[in-house]
Amino acid sequence: MKIEGQHYRSLWWNAGEAVLEIIDQRWLPHDLRIQPVRTLADFSDAIVEMRVRGAPLIGATAAYGMARAMADDPSDASMDTARDVLNRTRPTAINLRWALDRCRTALRPLPEANRAAASLALAHAIADEDVEINRRIGEHGLTLIREIAARKPAGEPVRLLTHCNAGWIATVDWGTATSPMYQAHDEGIPLHVWVDETRPRNQGALTAWELGSHGVPHTYITDNAGGHLMQHGLVDMVITGTDRTTRRGDVCNKIGTYLKALAARDNGVPFYVALPSPTIDWTVENGVDEIPIEERSARETTHIQGRGEGGGIATVQVTPDGTPGGNPAFDVTPNRLVTGLITERGICPATPEGLAALFPEMAREVG
Amino acid sequence: MKIEGQHYRSLWWNAGEAVLEIIDQRWLPHDLRIQPVRTLADFSDAIVEMRVRGAPLIGATAAYGMARAMADDPSDASMDTARDVLNRTRPTAINLRWALDRCRTALRPLPEANRAAASLALAHAIADEDVEINRRIGEHGLTLIREIAARKPAGEPVRLLTHCNAGWIATVDWGTATSPMYQAHDEGIPLHVWVDETRPRNQGALTAWELGSHGVPHTYITDNAGGHLMQHGLVDMVITGTDRTTRRGDVCNKIGTYLKALAARDNGVPFYVALPSPTIDWTVENGVDEIPIEERSARETTHIQGRGEGGGIATVQVTPDGTPGGNPAFDVTPNRLVTGLITERGICPATPEGLAALFPEMAREVG
Repeated sequence: MKIEGQHYRSLWWNAGEAVLEIIDQRWLPHDLRIQPVRTLADFSDAIVEMRVRGAPLIGATAAYGMARAMADDPSDASMDTARDVLNRTRPTAINLRWALDRCRTALRPLPEANRAAASLALAHAIADEDVEINRRIGEHGLTLIREIAARKPAGEPVRLLTHCNAGWIATVDWGTATSPMYQAHDEGIPLHVWVDETRPRNQGALTAWELGSHGVPHTYITDNAGGHLMQHGLVDMVITGTDRTTRRGDVCNKIGTYLKALAARDNGVPFYVALPSPTIDWTVENGVDEIPIEERSARETTHIQGRGEGGGIATVQVTPDGTPGGNPAFDVTPNRLVTGLITERGICPATPEGLAALFPEMAREVG
Repeated sequence: MKIEGQHYRSLWWNAGEAVLEIIDQRWLPHDLRIQPVRTLADFSDAIVEMRVRGAPLIGATAAYGMARAMADDPSDASMDTARDVLNRTRPTAINLRWALDRCRTALRPLPEANRAAASLALAHAIADEDVEINRRIGEHGLTLIREIAARKPAGEPVRLLTHCNAGWIATVDWGTATSPMYQAHDEGIPLHVWVDETRPRNQGALTAWELGSHGVPHTYITDNAGGHLMQHGLVDMVITGTDRTTRRGDVCNKIGTYLKALAARDNGVPFYVALPSPTIDWTVENGVDEIPIEERSARETTHIQGRGEGGGIATVQVTPDGTPGGNPAFDVTPNRLVTGLITERGICPATPEGLAALFPEMAREVG
């Protein structure tokens, strides 16, 4: 999508220098810093420190990390090391494991001499596929927005609520939850997006930045506000992304998503989740019981980064010295609270049958 | 309660200088600043700017504001002006109106010459009553904590979750939601309190500061985390305060309370609300439809205050320039989600019958 009129992806290959370049998202929305990622340690750091974030983007980044490792040393041992190092970076999103497994399956049978070129081509393919998948998610989600718009008086905006940033910078392009928004806006449907702040890392500020750059009307709200807005009829539909979806349609996403799903159910508001199929973990049934939830640093809850009074990036401590913090990064929304799943192949109910009907070959492989 | 071993109330009368002194809560938990409140404009400012906050404390402050006005000019016109100025400061909490109406009812029949002394005595009485009410709320709430503790293996903590600060600094002393916690802790029952951050004003940092000062074990979490904790069996009971309770037991409290009540219901966790009877609005039935919800400055959502890297109070801007923010300050939890109301007269179901049985004289007055 565009930043000040110029089209960007959230990562791209610099062929001249043979390095991956990323937008270092730790400085957004205040600073647009481009960062080269050179070594396997750089790749690991970029994911752990959330320079890149968002399940689909993490997957694509990991594929480039494998390409880096194969360029340095195309042995099986190097491949295994790269897989282990990258897979350890974040425990919850499944796209990471999916991308690394896909790389290994493709590269393992190849002679070592071919692995560097093949792994780079595969990383490019994974990145390009992500763009295409998200474009299609947007097309399908757009049909839902059109239906809501058709039921409203002309000119009255469709009011969406989203949590976290499932935007273009959480993917290679388009975003998942935002793709229907961008496509609806581009088609001329009036929209208004309630953007959840998404503590502790305030990814809502990224979503606000994205939507603002693209001209989509929006309001930034605290994570606490959505239930009240739904009680008062101010939300027509919720759309979020997901970091891992189970085969029965439980949705693991940024912490707090479950609370919004409960509020949507209590107020009759449709709750949709946009997901590329690599986000489905066909080996998992019950998300609450089976998905490991990353516990991140307590400092993320007690300290907040932003633009300081002097204009530079600054951090403030909100709590008293020594206050212990807890920071589970994700929660699981049971499928009973999910109205539907918006995938690249269409929209389905959040049920084992719904997902299996859209992705029969993947469901069969595990079942 | 105590700050570094010394007992404080959140406001007190300085008889030597004939001024009210308050703890200016805008600087907590980082700085303990005592502030004199001298003029009616000071009183209004103290409430609007949230130097004092919390429904019970606002009520007591307003009573002192009326005393200030009566000392300056004991006429009926002055009384009406003071009532209007103070009543306008915050629209949602009912204690403000309750305290001002009580003052007017008591003062109006008096000769002007007696009003200054009588209004000051009444303000003292309202403050002292608040302390006694909250102590009793704690006694009743303590019975619930004892019951949970009795069902657990010895030494395993009772895990409570609270939202916002319904602590001693939101009242004159003891707090509402925290009063049972302090009494349980003092009795030797092991506790662990999950403290919701409570965006946008992070009153959870005040609760963490209070609990830390009193030695109650706690963990500061984002508002997003509570649902996940309940899903995993880590919360035994939720206790919050309230800014206004309707006669059928709908609870208007800090924005986000409703989301926690939904999560409690979905996970079978008891959800209790601690309230002094002045918080009951007997004229209101349906909280969602009838209670005006204060919309505060958008800047509270986009900018966050804390202790800066240099040690002083600093503010960071989280969002891009120009991001529009929305900031409803309260929401309403329908009575169907409330397990029970903890009042100074005991615990009752959140129903018209439950409240009327405990407060028959008040229910009759309106009914």
